Amino acid sequence: MTLTLQDCRDRDAQDLLRPLRDLFSLPAGQIYLDGNSLGAAPKATAARVASVVQNEWSQDLIASWNKAGWVDLPLRLGNQFAPWLGAGQDEVVFTDTTSINLFKVLTAAARIAAEDGPARKKLLTERSNFPTDLYIAQSVCQQHGLELVLLEPEEILPALDDDAAVLLLTHVNYRTGAMHDMEQITAAAHAHRILCVWDLCHSAGAVPVDLRGANADFAVGCGYKYLNGGPGAPAFVWAHPRVVNRCWQPLTGWFGHAAPFQFTPGYAPAEGIRRYLCGTQPIISLSALQCGLDVFSATEALGGMQALRAKSLALTDLFIRLVEERCQGHGLGLATPLHHAQRGSQVCLTRDEGLGLDGQGSGAYAIIQALIARGVVGDFRQGDGGLGRHKDILRFGFTPLYVGFEDVWNAVEQLRQVLASGEWREPRFHQRQAVT
Amino acid sequence: MTLTLQDCRDRDAQDLLRPLRDLFSLPAGQIYLDGNSLGAAPKATAARVASVVQNEWSQDLIASWNKAGWVDLPLRLGNQFAPWLGAGQDEVVFTDTTSINLFKVLTAAARIAAEDGPARKKLLTERSNFPTDLYIAQSVCQQHGLELVLLEPEEILPALDDDAAVLLLTHVNYRTGAMHDMEQITAAAHAHRILCVWDLCHSAGAVPVDLRGANADFAVGCGYKYLNGGPGAPAFVWAHPRVVNRCWQPLTGWFGHAAPFQFTPGYAPAEGIRRYLCGTQPIISLSALQCGLDVFSATEALGGMQALRAKSLALTDLFIRLVEERCQGHGLGLATPLHHAQRGSQVCLTRDEGLGLDGQGSGAYAIIQALIARGVVGDFRQGDGGLGRHKDILRFGFTPLYVGFEDVWNAVEQLRQVLASGEWREPRFHQRQAVT
Repeated sequence: MTLTLQDCRDRDAQDLLRPLRDLFSLPAGQIYLDGNSLGAAPKATAARVASVVQNEWSQDLIASWNKAGWVDLPLRLGNQFAPWLGAGQDEVVFTDTTSINLFKVLTAAARIAAEDGPARKKLLTERSNFPTDLYIAQSVCQQHGLELVLLEPEEILPALDDDAAVLLLTHVNYRTGAMHDMEQITAAAHAHRILCVWDLCHSAGAVPVDLRGANADFAVGCGYKYLNGGPGAPAFVWAHPRVVNRCWQPLTGWFGHAAPFQFTPGYAPAEGIRRYLCGTQPIISLSALQCGLDVFSATEALGGMQALRAKSLALTDLFIRLVEERCQGHGLGLATPLHHAQRGSQVCLTRDEGLGLDGQGSGAYAIIQALIARGVVGDFRQGDGGLGRHKDILRFGFTPLYVGFEDVWNAVEQLRQVLASGEWREPRFHQRQAVT
Repeated sequence: MTLTLQDCRDRDAQDLLRPLRDLFSLPAGQIYLDGNSLGAAPKATAARVASVVQNEWSQDLIASWNKAGWVDLPLRLGNQFAPWLGAGQDEVVFTDTTSINLFKVLTAAARIAAEDGPARKKLLTERSNFPTDLYIAQSVCQQHGLELVLLEPEEILPALDDDAAVLLLTHVNYRTGAMHDMEQITAAAHAHRILCVWDLCHSAGAVPVDLRGANADFAVGCGYKYLNGGPGAPAFVWAHPRVVNRCWQPLTGWFGHAAPFQFTPGYAPAEGIRRYLCGTQPIISLSALQCGLDVFSATEALGGMQALRAKSLALTDLFIRLVEERCQGHGLGLATPLHHAQRGSQVCLTRDEGLGLDGQGSGAYAIIQALIARGVVGDFRQGDGGLGRHKDILRFGFTPLYVGFEDVWNAVEQLRQVLASGEWREPRFHQRQAVT
């Protein structure tokens, strides 16, 4: 039996997480399936940032570092979100950006590995890792005389050997939504004494994460995707207690000092994760981010991550099924794993090339643009033009906090119409934007 | 003839910059002389950040990277402020923190120096540089096999020799308010092919800066002091065109890539100062900072930096004179140079130790606390307890944008009363705060 719009409405009516949607300010007439690129704005955020400016900053000025608790905000937010990462208290800070935090932990891992076994000369990662991860890894390798080894997913386990120093993986792949088994891979890497660095940009707040349970070494992740912290929100960094104090991270700013306000001339890192702070912390941005984290705190009473994950899988299952049922005959394929244990909170479609594409590649870019014009916001990720194994991707993120089942129906219906009408072939949908 | 309160009021009445004060939201009943630690809030900022959240983020979501011009904001703000630094267009970006930007430019300078002459093994700086500068320099030296050489001010010129790779100086000293001659020192360093990195935290927006005129190599500076960008605001970084493209900076995130949205696997730095960007940029913080920079743009019609500098010197001259006239007999000394060409926009007082201090050191900390209790906000910087040449400091910053001449009178009058009454000896003024 095929699904109907009414089936989807019924599921929204039964959805215990539905009230969370009201915590967000969403544009009317839009179905936003790009929360894995930039999360939506909590309703609380605008008033919160205005209040931080008008009350804490304007009125109490410098005294707010103590009075409003600014000085502890990176750690306080880390503690607030730690349970969602399977991390302990005082193990997480929100600070700087994912790229910068990755530089810190990769350098730390390279230093620890060099101490433990100077012959280890490889940093392993996935070829389709998010580019900034590859760029930062490239810089760290250059500085530390390591070889950067790029692997396909199935090559990862076989590549683990005693020559490798560090394994850097993104838990959920940004292009495909495929999720690694963090515990299994970490254990296999540890058998060769390889340090494991996990990028949680597409998993924190989206799928269950258990850093301590998986026995990971380091992790970083994004504040502006599933955590809804705002554009360019501070990122987080975590280090397992067994490694956190083993070395300096390289960005030795005063906020990571053991006694930052004693103004001593020599650097002495703070004990624990505070040493991963660097410069003066961005209080307005951190305050905005807190509104995003507060939504997760509110979710705890509604079942927490277990409930979010169940809804996320129901949304992505529904999208996959409806695309199969309703968009046949247009060359769409599925890049995201069907198996739940291997799927993040997004669905990525491919489109077979050469189907009347008028020299416009797969058409994936134009289809996404045509969908956006109809109020369905997903995004496009470019493939390798047939040179390798990466096809163009139509990417749809499903944030269970604010996406509903009727949204999924309507998104697929718009996709069906875009494909059936062929409107995506219009030239206006082929013009590239600066940021896509 | 001694000065009177009426003299100060007359000077405010004649002050052409006086209207700028109305652009700030200042707490009633307070004289804020700590703008060199955290600048005051422009009135425009609260509404601006709320609007970025409510309109740009909430409503246009991911489309705002193009539509609201988010992607160019670091460079747009850099271009807006460049004239105040004597920098050219497309030479400055606002991003990350001073500490992180310093790590970028010091690493770049170390790499360029190694290329130009591998025998150069010293990084020179000032012993009383701001601690985070010393910590970051320490980390860069450790990574690059350089020796960190700490100098007293009078030792700098004699220390310049062909063994030195990099000279890092803060233009205006945070403890004393003493200002270096950037042009003279840079020329002397260049005679030995030493690269010059200038930290402008206490000079940008406070004193005339001419990076191109002084022929500097790199500069960094703070957004939250004299620029009034908000607590932990993004910092800036500048590189002279002759060095900007010579090497990668180490934080090779995707925003510094030549084509960040093409998602290519190998890092290729952007041409020019964009390569000093790293991760996704903090849009809410950058938008808040823009309100601070807008005040400078408004100042251009009132005489620009020349008018600001004239008022700043008049304020600090007045403060010094009034302390001399009205606070005699309490052991106060002056740590800030009297000579205008050597003075920033702050006045730092010392207090001779042993004057009935009941074992409380110089009393400087308690005097500042007693002043704060009376609504005059300066700050305290600890000395070396008589071990070296650094005395405890009572520090007063004078931001000509919002501090007036009557403020100076009233601040000195409160200082006089604190000293005359001896109230600072009360135990409550000796309790240390987390951040001081």
